Amino acid sequence: MHLTQGLHTALQLNPEHPATVYRGRRRTYRESAERVARLAAGLRSLGLGEGERVAVLALNSDHYQEAMLACWWAGAVLNPVNIRWSAAEIAYSLDDCEASILIVDDHYLPLVEAIVAGMRQKPQLIHAGEAGTPAGMLSFEGLIAGSAPMADTFRGGEALAVVMYTGGTTGRPKGVMLSHGNLLSGVLMRMADLPPVADMVGLCVAPLFHIAGLASAYGRIITGATNVFVPVFDALEVMETVQRERANEILLVPTMLQAVLDHPRFAEFDLTSLQRVLYGAAPISAALLEKALDKLPCAGFVHLYGMTENGGQVTANPPHNHGAGSPLSRSVGRPTLGQWVRIVDEQGNEVPRNTVGELICRGPSVMQGYWNLPEETAKTLRDGWLYTGDAAYMDDSGHLFVVDRVKDMIITGGENVYSVEVENVLARHPAIALCAVIGIPHDSWGEAVHAVVTLKPGTQASEDELRAHCRESIAAYKCPKSVEFRESLPLSGAGKILKRDLRAPFWQEKGSAVN
Amino acid sequence: MHLTQGLHTALQLNPEHPATVYRGRRRTYRESAERVARLAAGLRSLGLGEGERVAVLALNSDHYQEAMLACWWAGAVLNPVNIRWSAAEIAYSLDDCEASILIVDDHYLPLVEAIVAGMRQKPQLIHAGEAGTPAGMLSFEGLIAGSAPMADTFRGGEALAVVMYTGGTTGRPKGVMLSHGNLLSGVLMRMADLPPVADMVGLCVAPLFHIAGLASAYGRIITGATNVFVPVFDALEVMETVQRERANEILLVPTMLQAVLDHPRFAEFDLTSLQRVLYGAAPISAALLEKALDKLPCAGFVHLYGMTENGGQVTANPPHNHGAGSPLSRSVGRPTLGQWVRIVDEQGNEVPRNTVGELICRGPSVMQGYWNLPEETAKTLRDGWLYTGDAAYMDDSGHLFVVDRVKDMIITGGENVYSVEVENVLARHPAIALCAVIGIPHDSWGEAVHAVVTLKPGTQASEDELRAHCRESIAAYKCPKSVEFRESLPLSGAGKILKRDLRAPFWQEKGSAVN
Repeated sequence: MHLTQGLHTALQLNPEHPATVYRGRRRTYRESAERVARLAAGLRSLGLGEGERVAVLALNSDHYQEAMLACWWAGAVLNPVNIRWSAAEIAYSLDDCEASILIVDDHYLPLVEAIVAGMRQKPQLIHAGEAGTPAGMLSFEGLIAGSAPMADTFRGGEALAVVMYTGGTTGRPKGVMLSHGNLLSGVLMRMADLPPVADMVGLCVAPLFHIAGLASAYGRIITGATNVFVPVFDALEVMETVQRERANEILLVPTMLQAVLDHPRFAEFDLTSLQRVLYGAAPISAALLEKALDKLPCAGFVHLYGMTENGGQVTANPPHNHGAGSPLSRSVGRPTLGQWVRIVDEQGNEVPRNTVGELICRGPSVMQGYWNLPEETAKTLRDGWLYTGDAAYMDDSGHLFVVDRVKDMIITGGENVYSVEVENVLARHPAIALCAVIGIPHDSWGEAVHAVVTLKPGTQASEDELRAHCRESIAAYKCPKSVEFRESLPLSGAGKILKRDLRAPFWQEKGSAVN
Repeated sequence: MHLTQGLHTALQLNPEHPATVYRGRRRTYRESAERVARLAAGLRSLGLGEGERVAVLALNSDHYQEAMLACWWAGAVLNPVNIRWSAAEIAYSLDDCEASILIVDDHYLPLVEAIVAGMRQKPQLIHAGEAGTPAGMLSFEGLIAGSAPMADTFRGGEALAVVMYTGGTTGRPKGVMLSHGNLLSGVLMRMADLPPVADMVGLCVAPLFHIAGLASAYGRIITGATNVFVPVFDALEVMETVQRERANEILLVPTMLQAVLDHPRFAEFDLTSLQRVLYGAAPISAALLEKALDKLPCAGFVHLYGMTENGGQVTANPPHNHGAGSPLSRSVGRPTLGQWVRIVDEQGNEVPRNTVGELICRGPSVMQGYWNLPEETAKTLRDGWLYTGDAAYMDDSGHLFVVDRVKDMIITGGENVYSVEVENVLARHPAIALCAVIGIPHDSWGEAVHAVVTLKPGTQASEDELRAHCRESIAAYKCPKSVEFRESLPLSGAGKILKRDLRAPFWQEKGSAVN
């Protein structure tokens, strides 16, 4: 299993078919493969060895796909950088995985200086942009034009394909290691379970640095389909692009879907080409589903549940479970073909149906482990099972419902935020005595980051001040959207903050404790 | 990737669903999994270690499936024995792969003594039958009843799952080594390409010792479907069983399909449940297809092309190419999702479309190699490509047409016969001066084995005598169906028999040189 295989077969079977569309720029598979083989050679000419890491910090575009495929073609490992992180967080992750090359687009050029300044080992910088290449950087187009195509290394199987960073409970990002086999088998299992749309034209608007965006874009390549890129979510551009390209598949998070459906100009666009809407990160609310079914009657809605650690998806909730009012529309579906999911108690024993426990899974798409973190790996991968930290139950028909999180994690706008990371930052503020960070319901983001704090006697701090303090160290989406000041926090006998008590009043009207 | 995964998920999601049906005997997934876990423990109690081989010599039945899954559960390797071979051929293959256990059904009990007598290392014998267990053998049911279920070893990935023997050009069978990943990815790629029938009830009548029979039966397990076993092909039992079980998928070779459609009692049976007819080993003739479309209007016909060495299938020709009169009905289809096929010249370079060359393929289902035959492996697996020995062309739309064989091999009734093996046996007859074995067209078997011989001066031998001579050493299907006596054979300048000249008159009315 090597991930360039899809490119080879698409090139062979349909070389003149469009591979990538980015605004006005269209490239066939023949053109795309030529560029990939040249870029791979260019990367190798910089001294990149097999198995070494190439980081990409960019909005979605055809260049992103080319860089991804060129990494694999060259036998290297892709490190898609979380574009929402601060320069310090990015520098940490690049140093951690020892990225020797960093590819940056126009949008993130302003961040490069701060990133590199924070790094122990300076990477070679490649500018993949429309504007002129700054001094000290190599040009993406120049590398392609100046390199003869190299033969594919065909590195694959258990060899690493990507290192993707996720937030860590330790307050440090963790690099999830996925092999070629992990990614390709994940895609095949999904397609075996849910046949791909015929003559697929997929809209890539969910960020490619996320596993869901990356895996869905990659999956289209193996079917020889077209990927159309929208650099960053914008409801208007999404609608314009779907209409212009007759896109028939799109992957979104529910908040994006909401923004599209609620857009004042929604009715102006012909979105009838959309046959499949994949969504993830959060279930769809009944109200949103009803609106979506009404406004996009041609589309089949599919909830993909998964995480970076299992290659992006372990269950799929198919269109027929998305009827208005169907109780199964809140389910994450059943395991896709080849996946194995169990709900277990704290001892790892399977619990009876309709009983909440931790969702664990195993299968060929489960990661190799966390980069250089054997202890974290051992905590998460136990006896061949990936412990997801999600609390869920399985009903009598095998449908899974995620109801809470075992790990102390918030999912806001599709991003994972570990409470402890935010708490560590808050605690460094001189006024903070105790703090707890929890997720509270939010109509657009699913959950919002909420801090509950007590101040040290004789000190003062405003909500804005605490937020600004956090923003200096961590990404905006991780910072508390609201701060609540209290005289005391509820503590357990062991002195642990009882977060469940803090969360309860916010969630009492919901059927679950997560969105 | 471990092959017991499908059993685990079927057990979890639908434990009371029928897993196996064998004539009057029906077992649910719960019952089947229990028996598999007990049988695995029983096999281990005999001293079977992980990675060791367990041979099965049996007609199709639920026991065959249980033995297969128990091997994998126990971490062992399945060796499905070619039931058409002579005792000497079987003894050779069992010795070759050092099978430590041989499971035999009632039908093949009479052969056991001769097999074991011919073996260097005597295996432990297990009788999987309905009748009483003979002395010196263990009882399959006794092992199951007497063993407590063991935990799955979860051996998988690159670990070997099966060793399956095919005829060898050297005149000795070669053991094809397929890993868990090879088999599972092959099945997933087929299903990603061609969605499985919903609520599948599959009829297993193609022999399970063949990759196509084994892989299709295994594939149904991962979807939690039912396998219905017919021990050996019999048109009447097939029709009775399809009707009784409402089977909706069946895998056949065209000769079986012909026998069903031509059966005098065909009209008495309700076969409308059949949604999909998979066939392989040979293309379907226009006349047979026309008859099949007429008599089985509900069924979609799918040609699966492949061989043991690539896990059973690399291309699929889907139902929509099987319209009456469609030129694509003679195609083997396009590569299934994730497979990569090339047509190359003798230097291994890809040839233009519509040009005949050797069909080579690569992908995750391609074998690990031949058991203990590094030189044969190196000849067949080159630079990551499997050289199939089939001559084919790819048309402009990517559809493949197999037109001849590069290797000197005959496919008769779905079985591979290497000419050289038959020639070696013939040449040992004292009367034979020169001989050549070729495939000639045959309405039922696709091709028939035909020998052209010259006799030594002053000797005599009848056709019957030569056939009997062959039958002493090799399987009946390998023996010449017809023998032609000539004064001389056409020789090349280098003294090589010009087989193409011998074959030409038989094939001149066909569009190809193979059936």
